[in-house]
Amino acid sequence: MLVKEKVNQAKGILKEFGVDCWLTFVRESGITPDPSLAFLAASDVTWHSAFIITASGETRAIVGQYDKQTIADLGAYDEVVAYVQSIKEPFLSYLKQLNPGKIAVNFSKGSEIADGLTHGMYLILRDLLAEIGMQDQLISSEKIVSALRQRKTAAELERMKGAIRFTEKVFDEVAGFIKPGRSEKEIAAFMINLMKQAGLVSAWDVNMCPAVFTGPDTAGAHYGPTDRKVEMGHVLNMDFGVKYQDYCSDMQRTFYILQDGETEAPPEVKKGFETILNSIESARKALKPGVQGHEVDAVARNIIVNAGYEEFPHGLGHQVGRFAHDGTALLGPRWEKYANKPFEKIEEGMVFTIEPRLTVPGRGVVTIEEMVVVTKSGAEYLSHPQTELILI
Amino acid sequence: MLVKEKVNQAKGILKEFGVDCWLTFVRESGITPDPSLAFLAASDVTWHSAFIITASGETRAIVGQYDKQTIADLGAYDEVVAYVQSIKEPFLSYLKQLNPGKIAVNFSKGSEIADGLTHGMYLILRDLLAEIGMQDQLISSEKIVSALRQRKTAAELERMKGAIRFTEKVFDEVAGFIKPGRSEKEIAAFMINLMKQAGLVSAWDVNMCPAVFTGPDTAGAHYGPTDRKVEMGHVLNMDFGVKYQDYCSDMQRTFYILQDGETEAPPEVKKGFETILNSIESARKALKPGVQGHEVDAVARNIIVNAGYEEFPHGLGHQVGRFAHDGTALLGPRWEKYANKPFEKIEEGMVFTIEPRLTVPGRGVVTIEEMVVVTKSGAEYLSHPQTELILI
Repeated sequence: MLVKEKVNQAKGILKEFGVDCWLTFVRESGITPDPSLAFLAASDVTWHSAFIITASGETRAIVGQYDKQTIADLGAYDEVVAYVQSIKEPFLSYLKQLNPGKIAVNFSKGSEIADGLTHGMYLILRDLLAEIGMQDQLISSEKIVSALRQRKTAAELERMKGAIRFTEKVFDEVAGFIKPGRSEKEIAAFMINLMKQAGLVSAWDVNMCPAVFTGPDTAGAHYGPTDRKVEMGHVLNMDFGVKYQDYCSDMQRTFYILQDGETEAPPEVKKGFETILNSIESARKALKPGVQGHEVDAVARNIIVNAGYEEFPHGLGHQVGRFAHDGTALLGPRWEKYANKPFEKIEEGMVFTIEPRLTVPGRGVVTIEEMVVVTKSGAEYLSHPQTELILI
Repeated sequence: MLVKEKVNQAKGILKEFGVDCWLTFVRESGITPDPSLAFLAASDVTWHSAFIITASGETRAIVGQYDKQTIADLGAYDEVVAYVQSIKEPFLSYLKQLNPGKIAVNFSKGSEIADGLTHGMYLILRDLLAEIGMQDQLISSEKIVSALRQRKTAAELERMKGAIRFTEKVFDEVAGFIKPGRSEKEIAAFMINLMKQAGLVSAWDVNMCPAVFTGPDTAGAHYGPTDRKVEMGHVLNMDFGVKYQDYCSDMQRTFYILQDGETEAPPEVKKGFETILNSIESARKALKPGVQGHEVDAVARNIIVNAGYEEFPHGLGHQVGRFAHDGTALLGPRWEKYANKPFEKIEEGMVFTIEPRLTVPGRGVVTIEEMVVVTKSGAEYLSHPQTELILI
């Protein structure tokens, strides 16, 4: 059971960071899901619920009566306590008994993945803790949650590879479907159909997964497929990923549609493509434990800019996990919206995308997105990297 | 477009409640979704995004560059402003220009549906507003969000009816599948298959949707189907709902499995069933604009208790909408975990479930869940109410 594995991992992380107690406090998780809950339970909970893990290795869940059996079945908690009218008594009496120095809870300015506690629930928690004088012991769990998400276990990596293999299969099959006259929407529908037949769901909002962009003057990214038709001489790119056993892939591929008489892409398209390949491979080589994400971003970004292209208006790569955008550390530039993410130390077990992009005027956007895992001393491709333009 | 309709409705609600400005402030909405966002955008947004609606009728969205076109396409905002590096400048300059007295944002202690702002985003927002001296102007948007969700438009009600009709069809079909020896899991799989064939998804966590309980000594509610087999002489109940065009149904039905030689259920099962019917119909008659939810809950609860059964350990009914559990006002008892929800005034346009339950010892749980809409002067069934035990 993955929940058991991750709860055990969390105990070790608490000890490592010297935090007494990690509390995930949620209600109606189908409505306001805390991104940490998936590591702590395998389904949604309804009423105010507390999942408590301690550095000493003690674990307890306190949930509404009807959620008790489902949580107890996980076998991840020493005790699962149920209530009917209010969580207050079982919650406060357990905390008094624990008497933790600090209580780490899921809020973070810098990392949305560690920011699952809603403000209303934060206020409720402070009110509750005030009754036992612990209201000022709350700290952010960002470091704990980030470590738990980014240190992928073998079981998690296997699931991600499953998602990647399927995505690659779809890229292979759709290459035979793309031809001049087909619309972005038709191409996306073909891919979605393959996904549904396999019983899988998209890694992000299905309105934009896959995203398909053909030719110049498209929205560029984060936009649904349109009625725009594939034309000869244009570059087509797509962004696609699936969830496989709850874990995501996120990959992009670039295609070129040959004109009559052409046997290869024109020089400016080839130059763009080679620049992207060089940018990705150089970034992968720069990626290793101990470096910071902005350094890796700069390697890839400089190659694009030095080759004469405009820099891409986004980070080079993000982590992937249960979400297509996952984790805290980011391979990104030092822009305000990224907060501290580009300064986080890279660590073994992190899975990143590498996804630079550039525009070839009059042709379209060249972009490839590969997935890599950080190893002890470097980074390895999880995907089979695209090495040639896919010629249609 | 539903977004346009709801944004327009929101303008009127702001005026009605005398609130200058409603701000929904989100990032990576695929990871920490604000339940209000579905009324303001039709897809997820990636970077820090602000959706601002004013009582004067002005609307503006400020989003990351790659999200701009998708939001602009909605046609719901006077202006959609994009940024690359930081939301700060476009956000603060617009607020300075608006100069609102109060800024309502999505946090609430009492209502999870109005509690979409994470604590980290709240802190970011306060930091930003402090730069223009507006950090103390934040108030809870609970009243606005509750009104927007609970006042269903005709288009929303049509979608909900679609979900209900499909659910009723599944109840009809599964009646022919249930027989002694079939397991809860087999019955659930049959229903899920019908749902998938129709291209629909479950209204809540599919591990517990449908929930199927047969015989005595089951978990009772909120638990996945097990390998327990249907037996003659037992009561079987199920809880099921689907999303149809993003709107939910949530319904329960009770079956009785005849023993050899029986042509009807035994007296104690019939008594339980009649008590539930009486409880539901009495609650529906008590439900109308102006009353409070706990009054309606008490009507149904008293009938159960006065007939000699233990009271059910949950509220009588919740609102339904985009979520199976939706809205703020609740037909529930005055228990601490329900906060102020049972005291909210009932209003025209609210859609509620009515779902009392009781146990018939040695037979199983009798429970029906109907859906009703509050009208000008009362409440009408949206579902076709169960009036007879379904005999297998």
